[in-house]
Amino acid sequence: MNTAVQALSDARKLVEPELRSAVGRLDPHLALVASYHFGWCDRDGNATEANAGKALRPGLTVIVAEGLAGDAKPAVAGAVAVELIHNFSLVHDDLIDRDRERRHRETVWSVWDDTTAILVGDAMASLAHEVLADSGSPYADRASLALAAATRDVIRGQAQDVLFEQRGDVTLAECLQMAADKTGALLAVSASLGAVLVGARDAEAACHEFGAELGVAFQLVDDLLGVWGHPDVTGKPVFADLAAGKKTMPVTWAIEHGGHVGAQLAEWFAARDPRAPAAAEDLQYAADLLEKAGARDWASAEADRRVAAALAALAPIPLHEGARGTLTDLADFVVRRSL
Amino acid sequence: MNTAVQALSDARKLVEPELRSAVGRLDPHLALVASYHFGWCDRDGNATEANAGKALRPGLTVIVAEGLAGDAKPAVAGAVAVELIHNFSLVHDDLIDRDRERRHRETVWSVWDDTTAILVGDAMASLAHEVLADSGSPYADRASLALAAATRDVIRGQAQDVLFEQRGDVTLAECLQMAADKTGALLAVSASLGAVLVGARDAEAACHEFGAELGVAFQLVDDLLGVWGHPDVTGKPVFADLAAGKKTMPVTWAIEHGGHVGAQLAEWFAARDPRAPAAAEDLQYAADLLEKAGARDWASAEADRRVAAALAALAPIPLHEGARGTLTDLADFVVRRSL
Repeated sequence: MNTAVQALSDARKLVEPELRSAVGRLDPHLALVASYHFGWCDRDGNATEANAGKALRPGLTVIVAEGLAGDAKPAVAGAVAVELIHNFSLVHDDLIDRDRERRHRETVWSVWDDTTAILVGDAMASLAHEVLADSGSPYADRASLALAAATRDVIRGQAQDVLFEQRGDVTLAECLQMAADKTGALLAVSASLGAVLVGARDAEAACHEFGAELGVAFQLVDDLLGVWGHPDVTGKPVFADLAAGKKTMPVTWAIEHGGHVGAQLAEWFAARDPRAPAAAEDLQYAADLLEKAGARDWASAEADRRVAAALAALAPIPLHEGARGTLTDLADFVVRRSL
Repeated sequence: MNTAVQALSDARKLVEPELRSAVGRLDPHLALVASYHFGWCDRDGNATEANAGKALRPGLTVIVAEGLAGDAKPAVAGAVAVELIHNFSLVHDDLIDRDRERRHRETVWSVWDDTTAILVGDAMASLAHEVLADSGSPYADRASLALAAATRDVIRGQAQDVLFEQRGDVTLAECLQMAADKTGALLAVSASLGAVLVGARDAEAACHEFGAELGVAFQLVDDLLGVWGHPDVTGKPVFADLAAGKKTMPVTWAIEHGGHVGAQLAEWFAARDPRAPAAAEDLQYAADLLEKAGARDWASAEADRRVAAALAALAPIPLHEGARGTLTDLADFVVRRSL
C-alpha cells in the first residue's frame, strides 16, 4: 500500500473513536443525523460499513504532529475539530447548493429536511470548538483561534461561490481566491494545527503554507474531475460542471488566456442557461474548447506547481524523514487521484 | 431611570464597539448583513439609529464581572461572544421558522435569501469563539467550553421546538426542558462567563443557576406575551401563539392541570389547523379557556418563583451590593416587561 494511503488509514483509526465520542455529546436525534452523514449508520441508526471518505484533513493534522513531535496524541483533538468543521461546511453547502448526493449517498437535507441540515451543521461547528476547549491542551486557544479564522475563510469562499453563479464576469484571480478560501484555508489549518498542538511554533507558518498550496491543487484537480472525471469516480455525470454552467479555474483561465478559442467558450457560457438540460454534444463541444484552449494542460500543470510549492514550504522545518516522505506521497496522491 | 435599564445601557456602551470590531472581521458582504441584523444600518449599509434590542445577555456578563471583580473589562470578550451566539441562533431560527419580522424589521432571510441567512449565522457563531480565543484571557478555554456547551443546548432546544410542532402530545415537562435549553442555557452562560473571565471560579455555578432560572422566567413571560401581549409591544397580532397552534408552557400546564377546562382546551388544539386562518372569536375562546384553567396565573406565579430562585442562587456569592441590587432589578425587569 502507498505510504500516504496507509498513513491516512492509521490516522483515521486514531481519530475516529474521538470523533464518534464527540458526536455522542449531541442530543440523540442530531447525533443520529451526524452519524448518518459520517457514514457510520443508515438513516434509522443501523450501523453500516463506514465509508467516511479519505479523512484527508484529520490525516494531515496527525501526520504533521507525529512528524514534528514523534507523537500525534496531543493533536487528536485538532484532527477531530477540523473534521467537524469540514463536515459542518459540507452539510450546509449541500443544502445551499441543493445537492442531493454526496459520496453516493443522499445528503442530510434530502433525507430529513432543511431545518435538520441547518441544526446539525450548527451543532458540528460548535462541537469543534468544544472539543478543542475540552482537550486540556496548553495550545487550545491558539488552535481555536486558527480554526475560527479558517472557518471564516471557508464561509467567505462559499458566499463567493454562490455570488459567482449569478455573475457572468468572474475572473481567474477571483476563482483562485475562492479556491484558497473554500478549500485551501481548511487544509492549511489542518496541517498547521498539527504544529500548533505539539507546541512547534516555528513550524506553524510552513505547515499552513503547505496545506494552503495543497488545497488549491486539490481544487484544481476537482475542477478537472468536474469536467473529465469518470462518473464512477465522481458520482456525477460527465461534464457535470459544464452542464451547471460553473465558472471554474480552468474555465476562467481559458476565457482569459485562450485567445479566440477562449472567446468561443465565453460565448458558449453566455448563451447557456444552467437550468435547461444540456445536449451531450453541446457539452462535448464546450469540453473540446476548454481542452483546445489549453486549460486542461494548464490546470494540470498548475496543480503540479502548487504541490511543488507545498513541498518546498516544508523543506526548512525539522520533520522526521518518514513524515516528510508520507506528506510528499500524500500531496502526490491528492493530485493523482483518478486522473 | 431604573438601575437595570441604566446598567444595560452602560454595558451596551462598553460592549458594542468590540462587537462592531468583531463583525468588521467578516468579509464585507457578510459584515453588512450582520450589521443590518444588529440594527446598525439599513440593507444598503446606510447607518441607522441603532435599536439593537436590550442586549440582556452581554449585560449580564458585564454586570456579573463588575460585581465580582470591580472591573468588567476582562469579560467584554465574553459579552461579545454571547451576543454573537444569541444572534446566530436568531438568524437561523428566523429562517427555520420562516419568521419575516423581528424587532419590527424584516429578517435576514426575508431581505436577502436562505443562503445568506445560513452563512451569516455560521459566520457569527464561529466569530464568537474567535473573539474568545483572541482575547488573551487566561480563562479563554474555559469560556469557550462553557459557550459551546450552551450552544449545544440552544440547538437541541430549537430542534425540540420544531419537533414539538409536529406532535400533539407535548408535556409540560418537555416544554420546561425546551425553555431551559432554548432560553435558559444562553442566559446561564452569559452570567457565568462574567465569573469565568474574572477568575471567580467559586461563583461560576451560582451565576449559571441565576441565569438558568432567569431564562425560564423570561420564556414564561414570552409565552404570556404570545397570548395576551399588546401588538405594539410584541410586534405580533394578539393571540399569535394560539393562532399558530403553539404548545407553550401555559398551554401544556392547562391541559395537564386544568381539569375539564383543560380538556376543552386540548380538544380545541386537536381540532385547530395552524395553517388555516383563525377567527378572532375562536382565538378569544381559547384564550378564555387558558385563563379559566388558571394557566395565566400559574405562568405568572411560576415566573416569580423562578426569579426568586435566581436571586437565591446569588445569595451566597460575594457580589458588590450595587451589582446585587442591579441584578435584582434586572430580574424584576425581565418579568415585569410589558405585563
